Amino acid sequence: MAQPATMAHSNPASRLSRLTVNRLSLYLRRLEALAAEGVKTVSSGQLGEDLGVSDAQVRKDLAYLGHLGYPGVGYYPQELIGVIRRTLGLDHDWAVVLIGAGNLARALLKYRGFQQQGFRIVAVFDADPNKVGERLDELTVTPMSSLAETIARHQAQLGIIAVPAPAAQSVADELAAAGIRGILNFAPAVLRLPPQVHLVAVDLAVQLEQLAFLVRQDLDPQ
Amino acid sequence: MAQPATMAHSNPASRLSRLTVNRLSLYLRRLEALAAEGVKTVSSGQLGEDLGVSDAQVRKDLAYLGHLGYPGVGYYPQELIGVIRRTLGLDHDWAVVLIGAGNLARALLKYRGFQQQGFRIVAVFDADPNKVGERLDELTVTPMSSLAETIARHQAQLGIIAVPAPAAQSVADELAAAGIRGILNFAPAVLRLPPQVHLVAVDLAVQLEQLAFLVRQDLDPQ
Repeated sequence: MAQPATMAHSNPASRLSRLTVNRLSLYLRRLEALAAEGVKTVSSGQLGEDLGVSDAQVRKDLAYLGHLGYPGVGYYPQELIGVIRRTLGLDHDWAVVLIGAGNLARALLKYRGFQQQGFRIVAVFDADPNKVGERLDELTVTPMSSLAETIARHQAQLGIIAVPAPAAQSVADELAAAGIRGILNFAPAVLRLPPQVHLVAVDLAVQLEQLAFLVRQDLDPQ
Repeated sequence: MAQPATMAHSNPASRLSRLTVNRLSLYLRRLEALAAEGVKTVSSGQLGEDLGVSDAQVRKDLAYLGHLGYPGVGYYPQELIGVIRRTLGLDHDWAVVLIGAGNLARALLKYRGFQQQGFRIVAVFDADPNKVGERLDELTVTPMSSLAETIARHQAQLGIIAVPAPAAQSVADELAAAGIRGILNFAPAVLRLPPQVHLVAVDLAVQLEQLAFLVRQDLDPQ
């Protein structure tokens, strides 16, 4: 079982490791799908099944959040959805700024999953004067010079970096200076950030590696 | 600790759960970074540190792969890199087909991480006749009608779905029929696949949720 990286707060949720939080997100997806199908109760086994997580692990993860399981019944999806959303900070909307107006940014702006979970992209920026002023979906590409002012106006706390790797660190520095508290980085670059700014790096190759492993098992079981 | 979803094979690696495989990918990234810095030995604690994984969990994960740790020394990054790459099936190249020639596909074609880990995108397809024939980086957009022939010619085993959600299931069916063994799905749609085809779904909102949780902890420690 992954241990917490820090134990700074007394809130039990603050003791959750990144991997536990990742599992909570996955449980949330599954619960939302079950709730949409009209399922009224769910067992820890059902919840973990598609994720390859044992029922013991599911129970352990959910026990961090309170006394949520009912003996002989299981869990109520709607109750659990509410608790997990609150734990993850999804019980309110987040204003997000997007840096970079390239192909990835365009794809992210169309990505419905962000909006569904309460992540609202309020502005998109690019350093290229040729892109500034261009219309992308509901937004107009804004110059980097207005980054700080825009972040303050929208009270944005999260930023997504979707620029080429060589530009990523300076963009991260500007986001940190403008008061952004968390950065989702798609650029294949290792970023250094002040301690008050959290970082999650998206490495798409990890997903493909997981797939390769599954396929390799079939082809070459040894 | 996440338990394996299946125990079908005698190969120890086949008993690894998806979450363990995910951790192996993350260890691999960290080891590659350490090796690039010239680090000669690494402890389980160092390896797990940035990932919020305990040293006990790191040792347990790596013990599945053989006797790799040396008492009083730790692990040798280069040795571990080789073993993990072999376990994940990264000791040879994978030919990958990409379906969809939209913004996400264009971003994925430029994504250097795939190539670095041995994933070679050999063809890109689109159902839109206006996109067929268009040049994307090194590739030319190919019509869906030549999907099966192209997959056979390249002996491609993996496919990436980067089409709008409503088209995803029929694309998945075509990939399965053409002999693809694993699908990485970016479309926000739940796919049904024959048992011999593995699926990994990429949910980008999960990453943003993890970030929101980290930021929320700081702002509202309770």
